Amino acid sequence: MSQHADPSAHRGRHGRPRVGVREVARRAGVAASTVSRVLSDHPDVSPETRAQVLEVANALGYRPNGLGQMLRQGFTRTIGFCVSDIANPLFAQITRGAEMTLSKHGYSLLLSNSMSDPALELKNLQALDQRRVEGLLLSVTSETDPAMLAVLRDFQGPLVAIDRELHVDPTDSAALAAAPAGATVSAVLSDHAVGIRAAVAALAAAGHRHIALLQELAELRPGRVRAQAATAAAAELGITCRIHPAGPEGLSPGQIAAILTAPDAPTAVIAGHNQILIRLLAALRSAGLRYPDDVSVVTCDDVPLMEFFEPALAVVRRDPARLGAAAAELLLEHLVDADAPGRQVVLPTEFVPGASVRQLT
Amino acid sequence: MSQHADPSAHRGRHGRPRVGVREVARRAGVAASTVSRVLSDHPDVSPETRAQVLEVANALGYRPNGLGQMLRQGFTRTIGFCVSDIANPLFAQITRGAEMTLSKHGYSLLLSNSMSDPALELKNLQALDQRRVEGLLLSVTSETDPAMLAVLRDFQGPLVAIDRELHVDPTDSAALAAAPAGATVSAVLSDHAVGIRAAVAALAAAGHRHIALLQELAELRPGRVRAQAATAAAAELGITCRIHPAGPEGLSPGQIAAILTAPDAPTAVIAGHNQILIRLLAALRSAGLRYPDDVSVVTCDDVPLMEFFEPALAVVRRDPARLGAAAAELLLEHLVDADAPGRQVVLPTEFVPGASVRQLT
Repeated sequence: MSQHADPSAHRGRHGRPRVGVREVARRAGVAASTVSRVLSDHPDVSPETRAQVLEVANALGYRPNGLGQMLRQGFTRTIGFCVSDIANPLFAQITRGAEMTLSKHGYSLLLSNSMSDPALELKNLQALDQRRVEGLLLSVTSETDPAMLAVLRDFQGPLVAIDRELHVDPTDSAALAAAPAGATVSAVLSDHAVGIRAAVAALAAAGHRHIALLQELAELRPGRVRAQAATAAAAELGITCRIHPAGPEGLSPGQIAAILTAPDAPTAVIAGHNQILIRLLAALRSAGLRYPDDVSVVTCDDVPLMEFFEPALAVVRRDPARLGAAAAELLLEHLVDADAPGRQVVLPTEFVPGASVRQLT
Repeated sequence: MSQHADPSAHRGRHGRPRVGVREVARRAGVAASTVSRVLSDHPDVSPETRAQVLEVANALGYRPNGLGQMLRQGFTRTIGFCVSDIANPLFAQITRGAEMTLSKHGYSLLLSNSMSDPALELKNLQALDQRRVEGLLLSVTSETDPAMLAVLRDFQGPLVAIDRELHVDPTDSAALAAAPAGATVSAVLSDHAVGIRAAVAALAAAGHRHIALLQELAELRPGRVRAQAATAAAAELGITCRIHPAGPEGLSPGQIAAILTAPDAPTAVIAGHNQILIRLLAALRSAGLRYPDDVSVVTCDDVPLMEFFEPALAVVRRDPARLGAAAAELLLEHLVDADAPGRQVVLPTEFVPGASVRQLT
């Protein structure tokens, strides 16, 4: 490798020259502009020249100059991902699905955790915007925070919500809250209603007349849909389903234990998500209660190790990695066609029975 | 806000002008170059001018021009993170610890999953390098892959390994494997030996003379250290500890069941990590074995929901979020002082007894 012949060669940290476009051009016997055309997939190059240039570039270990070149071409091949807590197994699996799909298409994922703090989420979104991510995957902690919606409105690229309903009206900030669902933000949504209705029906069929849904974060779509579907299904079946939402601090194990030991305690309880399942199990333990003998239990979303619980937990299941992959695919569609209208993809949930539900006599 | 007066104003997607440096300068009554000096923390500005410029910039909602400006100043405020599988709860918690720490210091995290595939890991590293991440956090899937080590050697920024021993000799690629530990790559390491020795001692004290360590990925540091420490501790205590490593496809539940039902089956088994614990539990179930009656069980690393297992699992515990946070802090140190020598930070593990270990009579 000739160091002095190529003025475009850059030196790495340890003094080894990087191969530049001109070195590739010289070895391939073509003009530097031809190399650039090949590397940017310009159509005006013969197949023979293209093959020759790529072979030489490969042989020399040429790598395009990265971010600088990308920026000149107007892209960063980077996607921002906003999530409340990557350590939540649900979000970890969604993130893996999204990252693996994006990476296959040459995109990298910038990850940010808000820990359910809207102020931190706003800061994270601004940081992602500053890094010129080309698109955003949004599993945000609020669907209505005006400052967040304002950042999304000004963001210059496609947005895909993951199990969130975001109304971002590009023309009138005062109309944000009133904009129709999905008007501008594409989304991948779980069909929570199907799974939760099947769970309520199974409980009713087992003789339960008074059930409870522990549903923190009721202001976000998953909780909202589950609460609505459970209430409607219970009404149709002539049984009672009480919803127990909670403030941002969550339902504590003590509060849950109080619900389960009250005079009008439910005979069955549905944990609305994996974090509340942990508090429910702690409440059962502290109150000396066992499922299904003392109370029947259904949970929402699989978590690693849950398969080894005995008795087996009945669960409303979905495929979170597929949720992440579908969101990434939808975003890639929008990146290819910036004028495509926003759309929603709905993925299934299913109720899986388990011995945690007791047949009442 | 004046749209026509500021030629540096950029328009967002929806036609609202962005506030530029010149608008800030005009309102503050200073030169644009003064605004730039303030925003880049140049010392040659009076405290009064600095305060005035920052106040005006704040009032106008001025945001620096993001990535373009960062690149001109030579930084991207982005860190790359290489991990085998973000959906593994251990890595999800490490990632959260790292991201939260970096974000507090204005850095964003570019995440990549290799799914334990060295070829994909190499591709991911190159993609991170192309995006000009300023540093790399490495929980890589191989410690010895030459192509990966070559990319790390050429990477222009600090590297921090997370529970990995990476030997990257900047001057001589032939000497890669022979370079002393930590010569150039800083690392945050778990002190696995302490926890695993305590686990072996507890098993010996309970009367176990023949134990087994199920340790996939024995070629990576955590498995290597655990295997060495368990073997040494067993020898000192006069008992036997057999190591059961496995190829890249892993020890299957069937293989584990065969180990547990062989004529010379161990009376106690240690799961070397959370993924093999899942296979061990599946093996117990399929073989109709129960812990601690049929075999005593110890596992390594906490996983959500594990606290609800009955009988409680004995565990060699560590704090993965702290591991991630410490790695991020070490990387930030190197970013502030590029000449600081590489160093290693060692974080503790502890053995937590549990009813999964049976006292042999």
